[in-house]
Amino acid sequence: MNNKIISRALKLALCGCCAAGLSAPLAAFAAGTSNKPSSETWTGTLPIAPFGPFQRIYMPQNAPSAANRAGFPHEWTSVYANARHNAAFPVSHDAPAWLRQGVGWNYAEARAWPLSDKLPFGDKVYGEREALPVQTQFMGNALGVTAVDGVIYAESDDMFAYALNARTGQLIWRASPLQNNLMGDPVVAGNSVYLSAGSVSFNFAHVIKYAKTGKTSRGEDESFNGVVSLNKNTGKFQWLFLTQGEAMPTPAYAYGALFVSTGAGNVFAIDASNGRKIWETHVGGIANMSDPVVYKGRVYLSMSVVPYVYCLDAKTGKVLWKQTIKGAVNTGMGDVAPVVDNGIVVQDTVADKRVHDGHKTVDTIIEAMSAKTGKILWKANMGRGPLPPAFKGGMPMIHDGVVYVGTPVNSVYQARNLKTGKLLWTWHVPDAGPAGAGRGPATYYKGTLYVSTGPYVYALNPKTSALIGKHYVGGRFGIVNPTIVGGTIYLGNSWDWINAIPVSEVNPNYRG
Amino acid sequence: MNNKIISRALKLALCGCCAAGLSAPLAAFAAGTSNKPSSETWTGTLPIAPFGPFQRIYMPQNAPSAANRAGFPHEWTSVYANARHNAAFPVSHDAPAWLRQGVGWNYAEARAWPLSDKLPFGDKVYGEREALPVQTQFMGNALGVTAVDGVIYAESDDMFAYALNARTGQLIWRASPLQNNLMGDPVVAGNSVYLSAGSVSFNFAHVIKYAKTGKTSRGEDESFNGVVSLNKNTGKFQWLFLTQGEAMPTPAYAYGALFVSTGAGNVFAIDASNGRKIWETHVGGIANMSDPVVYKGRVYLSMSVVPYVYCLDAKTGKVLWKQTIKGAVNTGMGDVAPVVDNGIVVQDTVADKRVHDGHKTVDTIIEAMSAKTGKILWKANMGRGPLPPAFKGGMPMIHDGVVYVGTPVNSVYQARNLKTGKLLWTWHVPDAGPAGAGRGPATYYKGTLYVSTGPYVYALNPKTSALIGKHYVGGRFGIVNPTIVGGTIYLGNSWDWINAIPVSEVNPNYRG
Repeated sequence: MNNKIISRALKLALCGCCAAGLSAPLAAFAAGTSNKPSSETWTGTLPIAPFGPFQRIYMPQNAPSAANRAGFPHEWTSVYANARHNAAFPVSHDAPAWLRQGVGWNYAEARAWPLSDKLPFGDKVYGEREALPVQTQFMGNALGVTAVDGVIYAESDDMFAYALNARTGQLIWRASPLQNNLMGDPVVAGNSVYLSAGSVSFNFAHVIKYAKTGKTSRGEDESFNGVVSLNKNTGKFQWLFLTQGEAMPTPAYAYGALFVSTGAGNVFAIDASNGRKIWETHVGGIANMSDPVVYKGRVYLSMSVVPYVYCLDAKTGKVLWKQTIKGAVNTGMGDVAPVVDNGIVVQDTVADKRVHDGHKTVDTIIEAMSAKTGKILWKANMGRGPLPPAFKGGMPMIHDGVVYVGTPVNSVYQARNLKTGKLLWTWHVPDAGPAGAGRGPATYYKGTLYVSTGPYVYALNPKTSALIGKHYVGGRFGIVNPTIVGGTIYLGNSWDWINAIPVSEVNPNYRG
Repeated sequence: MNNKIISRALKLALCGCCAAGLSAPLAAFAAGTSNKPSSETWTGTLPIAPFGPFQRIYMPQNAPSAANRAGFPHEWTSVYANARHNAAFPVSHDAPAWLRQGVGWNYAEARAWPLSDKLPFGDKVYGEREALPVQTQFMGNALGVTAVDGVIYAESDDMFAYALNARTGQLIWRASPLQNNLMGDPVVAGNSVYLSAGSVSFNFAHVIKYAKTGKTSRGEDESFNGVVSLNKNTGKFQWLFLTQGEAMPTPAYAYGALFVSTGAGNVFAIDASNGRKIWETHVGGIANMSDPVVYKGRVYLSMSVVPYVYCLDAKTGKVLWKQTIKGAVNTGMGDVAPVVDNGIVVQDTVADKRVHDGHKTVDTIIEAMSAKTGKILWKANMGRGPLPPAFKGGMPMIHDGVVYVGTPVNSVYQARNLKTGKLLWTWHVPDAGPAGAGRGPATYYKGTLYVSTGPYVYALNPKTSALIGKHYVGGRFGIVNPTIVGGTIYLGNSWDWINAIPVSEVNPNYRG
């Protein structure tokens, strides 16, 4: 400690209140009041012991051949593949048989819990209803998986990211760059895969801050948070964009930049090539699981506490408009990612919480807004039911002028006309379980709607919601979509597995 | 879902408030209101993938020979070895040379950060002052290590427990039974080693609960918490006592039972042989790092929010008395473990928080109480200084009628007469750093006082506090004591290392 700092600290500290006398280290005062940057680009050593359990594993012999890379998307720029959340990739008729007909395998990630076990770990001490999301948030896959060039990429709350051969399910690499949960859907662009690190946790200082001010910061001083860039082929570390709050949302990639929101109320544009900050906008509130999407030069995302959907200029970070949903509960909008298509943004949230005899109920409200102005175009109520634990909304998906959206509040999916909000059908999820079902986006693929919720994958008639088929996978799906390439459905599971299922096992009418 | 549950749920749900109509799954209501047990004994499968990174590693070839086991303690029943927190174990003059003269090695744990790096990871984005405790709480060793029968046992916030050969530093086994931080000092009794799992984190429901009621529960729905029993020789899982709140404190072992407090305000006595609950007392508040100690048939521990030290009957769990320290800040007492000797309990806490120009200052107050009645015997003020981040107190140690205690508030250690509180000396820790130093208990060993704080281990004259010697280890020590066996000091480091240092390298006068 140099004398200058001591002297500065003494000046701050000698406030006349201190009967007991002051002594070193008073630099703590100075340190405590310094202006910390809200982000840091790191390309140095990571805290990982060589030969230890968090060391990267790389098995090039398991990488797909050129023939097995063909037919897949070449990049993955957004959570659930695109701004519509529809991860559907048909292949041509002359694609290899395995790709057309599909493959089936289950890969056990680091904290795998037997798929045959119907109850989550710790179901007695937490109750099944709470233990289900705890298993998702701390040990399993929160979101769906990414399919690029014959490789399945997944992030898990077991703190590892995985790259598997899409045909065989064999491990190509695994890496755990940070001691934190990886809640996102990996983004792949160029030679890189981008992960987002952050947990649902608050430390005690931020518990007190919320009690005093109604504002807080999620993930701050809860391990280390941010966006990580790895080489997509080897898993080798490239850079880390550290943030003060958690980076639970999946970043969106566009124009050579990554856009991400954090638990400290910031939105960042990051240079995807080197992890340097391009711009930063403090919008306030906390990011939960509302993944930004990019549409026509603008970034759309939602925040919690206070609940708002924001539209930012992708070049400058300027907030162009913000909009809310009346009665939204404090975390409701920040949990759900908006979708955008045909100039319309669709956002949903739980709202209008009521308590009767200790039982909390909410509505699920969907709102469509003008992507240009934020003006509300239509609004609809999906119905009332018990307040679900943890993630409380449903991720919407748009296909061909129709919005498909679920909600765990009353465990339904609905289809609505994108322009008018007119209800086309309501489908009740069977076997929804005590935490409710209907969180993940549906996938529209070759005339059929696929839904992964509870322990099942379902195939529905998208026009009528009539059940075409279902397949029992086991475990439970969180905010997971069916990622479909050719004849295979790829999934991430709360029981900490990555699953591949032939489409034909869900939909008996499917011909590859 | 059976009809009985649906019917019950419908009765609860049809409260007349629900314009939008109710639908399945309403079992959520029933599940939400069921009485969950506050603990669960688990002996089944753990969520660990075979061949994955969390799989137990066991290398019997690295276990100590019978000759290298001799001279060590045969059990470790309490944090820092005993109810006095003095982990000092002299060996006889005919012990093997390595044991008398000491060994030196550094073992890199899973998230090891280079000891040569003076700054913690993420120091820019958090500021060094906050990044230091984050590194301790999420990646490094929070407490000191355990020495039993030639083996060093350590728990790390990297989520692994380690057993190393005390002579060679080689790994005998490592295990990560739960996806959670292991903050304790391993307890060893019989054939078992006992770990405690829990983090400093709160989930959002408990943030809101605190804002509404001033009460909360730490660690609840933040992964899975509790006390774990492993075979001490192989690291093989035996049982898990799951708790709702975190089990950050190290349990105390006595009378065949383990005593532990939790973030949900409970104190448990657990049958150490099978993990079954013997008794449970809800005292309220939250446990932080106040490890219970057992003394003459009674259990002593402190809680936060509201701050109290409790004395419970070890047989029945009945609260015999509780006592507080006037002005204690809400987490102050629950952070610090009491020590007991000669019928006197000593507890300290930060207290009397004041804010001037945004700078928070506190006193550190020590209080001695009658172990029998809780009556206050004496009280002393260690001085005022800036409020430290995270763990704010100093763990006391008693040797031969003298209490030694530090505090990071003004980075001093003091020695006081146990009976009268009379101040014998004050020693200012050099190089205290921006988070303050003085958290861990000192160790009194063969006429010299050893202190591990900041990046150093110090040797002091226990009568005068005169500095005899010091040794630079690197990294930083959290609430870490020097565990001394023969000629070696064993330590756990916030940079995620286990260190062995010959006593002679700290104290030039030491002859093994």
